[in-house]
Amino acid sequence: MKIAILGTGMVGKAHASRLTELGHQVVMGTQNVEAKKVEQTPDNSGQTFNDWHQQNPDVELITLMEAAQIGELIINALSGQVSVEALKKLEAQIGEKILIDIANPLDFSQGMPPTLTVCNTDSLGEQIQAALPKAKVVKTCNTTNADVQVKPQELAEGDHHIFMSGNDEEAKNKVTDLLQSYGWQNIIDLGDITTARGTEMFLPLWIRLFGKYGHSKFNIKVVK
Amino acid sequence: MKIAILGTGMVGKAHASRLTELGHQVVMGTQNVEAKKVEQTPDNSGQTFNDWHQQNPDVELITLMEAAQIGELIINALSGQVSVEALKKLEAQIGEKILIDIANPLDFSQGMPPTLTVCNTDSLGEQIQAALPKAKVVKTCNTTNADVQVKPQELAEGDHHIFMSGNDEEAKNKVTDLLQSYGWQNIIDLGDITTARGTEMFLPLWIRLFGKYGHSKFNIKVVK
Repeated sequence: MKIAILGTGMVGKAHASRLTELGHQVVMGTQNVEAKKVEQTPDNSGQTFNDWHQQNPDVELITLMEAAQIGELIINALSGQVSVEALKKLEAQIGEKILIDIANPLDFSQGMPPTLTVCNTDSLGEQIQAALPKAKVVKTCNTTNADVQVKPQELAEGDHHIFMSGNDEEAKNKVTDLLQSYGWQNIIDLGDITTARGTEMFLPLWIRLFGKYGHSKFNIKVVK
Repeated sequence: MKIAILGTGMVGKAHASRLTELGHQVVMGTQNVEAKKVEQTPDNSGQTFNDWHQQNPDVELITLMEAAQIGELIINALSGQVSVEALKKLEAQIGEKILIDIANPLDFSQGMPPTLTVCNTDSLGEQIQAALPKAKVVKTCNTTNADVQVKPQELAEGDHHIFMSGNDEEAKNKVTDLLQSYGWQNIIDLGDITTARGTEMFLPLWIRLFGKYGHSKFNIKVVK
């Protein structure tokens, strides 16, 4: 499948590598392609984007608009703060496609720990669905770090959970297939897109656990 | 130890029964003692307060002020919406005692699912600590249902987690002892009282899981 990943951060790169490994044709969308290619800022692992791209030459780096046009399935891995505005500009290209939203509405402007720009009576997932009413928005993966998202088996042999929220059942079935191809065995469909409030509001607890452990290779398992 | 439980709902009753079973002297505080004794409203299990009290005759029902005065350790099991105002009136009686806060700031006024009356940049735990600056507030148990709180071993043999937030290390050590006497093996001290934002904001996810499963006998385990 042709998959477009919007955003070139840790989350976007993790999904791009994994999806390529799984045999998909992956394009990655960024605001300014030439600037991204020569960007010198390293990510948390110390790599520049170009370092990563040299290791992942099959991923084509194109503009956000080209990516949204080409992709049969779209993954939003942009930062939460810019997602709604950026995606709204791609409404025509995204159309009725499945739009997997991984972003969290984190606000780091007041320092650590971040707060949420939207919560409680609304969520980023809902805002994106409202901005692109024809798109089939499925919120998922936003409750774990990027590596756990794409390789769940590397943590506790996959014995932990991932959540999913969205209004379209068929879209959620397809996203389930994709998550299973990553290795997810335990996927909880919480319901419609309003349930994204639950997973986005989990972030403040995730952030405290991250602060306590000093690493993000953890997740939660729902025990019944 | 003489323990005072403020509030006579499901959470208060669960802790009162369990603490009596564990050999503590338990008093329960309510706004109007005589009214509570003849209250005909059944709880979720179909019992009136009097039904429950007949099964738990060792628990003395007294006023909130008497309970806060007598208790060496205080448990706030009042509803989240009234907690700050009610506790502020008991400031002199609570003094420098340990105040375990189990309440969640749930707002059911707009129907189900509830929203939170405070979140993101503040929490109920912090508001209570600010209202009673001398009290040693420890937020805990608010991420599970009442039965799981007091008998964790009855769910997955206790293989799941409970969280704790508070500014006073000695108070958290004492609360840890109490939680261990309930059967908790996995207690995560998240840090100071501001980390209560994390556990209170977990509620919107808990509520969606409750809605999905149709029961509340579940909890989360942090997998590392």
